[in-house]
Amino acid sequence: MEHVSVPPLSRVAVCGGTHGNEMSGVYIVREMQRQKLEKAESVSITTVLSNPRAVEACRRYIETDLNRCFTDALLSTPITDSTSYELRRAQELNAQLGPKGSEEAVDLLLDLHNTTANMGLSFIFYSLDWITLHIYKYIQTKLTSMPVRVIQLDIPISEAYSLESVGKHGFAIEVGPQPTGVLRADIFNAMKEALDLTIEWLQKFNSGITFGGGEVEAYVLVKSVDYPRDPMTGELTAAIHPQLQDNDFKLLRPGDPIFQSFSGETVKHEGEELYPFFINECAYYEKKVAFHLARKVTLTFPSINVKRD
Amino acid sequence: MEHVSVPPLSRVAVCGGTHGNEMSGVYIVREMQRQKLEKAESVSITTVLSNPRAVEACRRYIETDLNRCFTDALLSTPITDSTSYELRRAQELNAQLGPKGSEEAVDLLLDLHNTTANMGLSFIFYSLDWITLHIYKYIQTKLTSMPVRVIQLDIPISEAYSLESVGKHGFAIEVGPQPTGVLRADIFNAMKEALDLTIEWLQKFNSGITFGGGEVEAYVLVKSVDYPRDPMTGELTAAIHPQLQDNDFKLLRPGDPIFQSFSGETVKHEGEELYPFFINECAYYEKKVAFHLARKVTLTFPSINVKRD
Repeated sequence: MEHVSVPPLSRVAVCGGTHGNEMSGVYIVREMQRQKLEKAESVSITTVLSNPRAVEACRRYIETDLNRCFTDALLSTPITDSTSYELRRAQELNAQLGPKGSEEAVDLLLDLHNTTANMGLSFIFYSLDWITLHIYKYIQTKLTSMPVRVIQLDIPISEAYSLESVGKHGFAIEVGPQPTGVLRADIFNAMKEALDLTIEWLQKFNSGITFGGGEVEAYVLVKSVDYPRDPMTGELTAAIHPQLQDNDFKLLRPGDPIFQSFSGETVKHEGEELYPFFINECAYYEKKVAFHLARKVTLTFPSINVKRD
Repeated sequence: MEHVSVPPLSRVAVCGGTHGNEMSGVYIVREMQRQKLEKAESVSITTVLSNPRAVEACRRYIETDLNRCFTDALLSTPITDSTSYELRRAQELNAQLGPKGSEEAVDLLLDLHNTTANMGLSFIFYSLDWITLHIYKYIQTKLTSMPVRVIQLDIPISEAYSLESVGKHGFAIEVGPQPTGVLRADIFNAMKEALDLTIEWLQKFNSGITFGGGEVEAYVLVKSVDYPRDPMTGELTAAIHPQLQDNDFKLLRPGDPIFQSFSGETVKHEGEELYPFFINECAYYEKKVAFHLARKVTLTFPSINVKRD
């Protein structure tokens, strides 16, 4: 692969509390603000508590999921009296950290999330981005306290709905398992380490170090599976099967149990072999997602260094 | 110890959703209602979804914690326009299943709860009650999927604030770890097994079987410990230490780490050796409880059988 040169990455935004009950990011951002951590060598850092009202209420959101508000269409919707708190906030964040797709946007936007699923530390990003893959590779090599994986959602950037799409480059760090509303030190420590390693990588990159190319395994979202539900009431009639629970990223084969109904029957996986993730994520009950399924691919990325003017 | 004879225990109430985001009880009660399970031999069963509005919203409560509303004082407070939804509901439940302390009250009230703490299956009850201890012993002997323990809150029944105090006998079953808003099959299965064993014990008791006396180890609440907080803002400055997290009921000795501050310092336990439980329970952040501490005691209970008129 060709070698790539990219302008310096000097302006970084670190966001937490995009979902108000995912506590690691909330406390990491608050601690950075308390320490007035605004500059690390060549990197200037903006810290943002994305949804302060949801953080205050310790809920995912107040009116609508903030992290589904960052499509081009929603960001350009005029504000009216009936506009939700979160869409207003999305447009404010877009003005502060973007505008999305513009030269003024921050160079890198990191959004800090937790999941109740047993996913370890996952990078989530949209279309192929060499910066993200290099940072991912750097963290994966150095962080040893839990598995580190990367998930690609193959969505055009205009339709990308989450906060990290506002930066020139961006990704979400998703760490679990952690219950909503709970702060676990092990999860906090892993997220903090990933953040520190990201800033360390940016400093090295800005200083002129060339990072060699290579390849990584990535999980590409294929489809989602909902819970079995009562057709009349929409209520669940089954839970994730104990043999699937906590087994995120373990290959699911046809015939493997996926649900246990409340009356005791087992529902089995049908169709192709795929990798489940976000298994039993708290916030996805209302989104009708019991788990996602992914295909594993190998992504090749080029060597990279900073382009000076 | 003397032998004890007790009138038949024919009327049982099984309550779930007293906290609307503790999902095992919600789904167990719904499934019992779907199956119209109202009678099991000599035992008539009333199933109750205690806080339907909180269940609907998937929150612990709407205005105030329902499971702190069952003191004699609150149950006799006149209803006004400003009375909270939960206190109204508490008085309704007291009318339906009690009144507390009266002859009309159900014979046994079981309230189903979850915790985010790694507590296995815990019985929680107020003052000494041979029925509760016998049922506990029965379940402890038969349930093998997780540790089974009993916790005594030494509070006079008039000041007992939780729903189970409305029955002639009563206890809460608290099963974890499970995130709020999430249903895990392993936790559901353990709670369902404990409930089935309780009803099995009641049938045997009502049929005239004598249960021998014995002793059990119990944990008696001594005190609670709050998180370190910023004195100005009240915000946390530390998380539960990784060496304490998930180690409920493991003896805590002076010098053992209990908190890890966000800037990295360790806070250690001071004072006597005690047993921690409800470590990092989600709902207790607002109650200013990082964990409870208990003393372990041995309770002796007499043999028991049914008293016929």
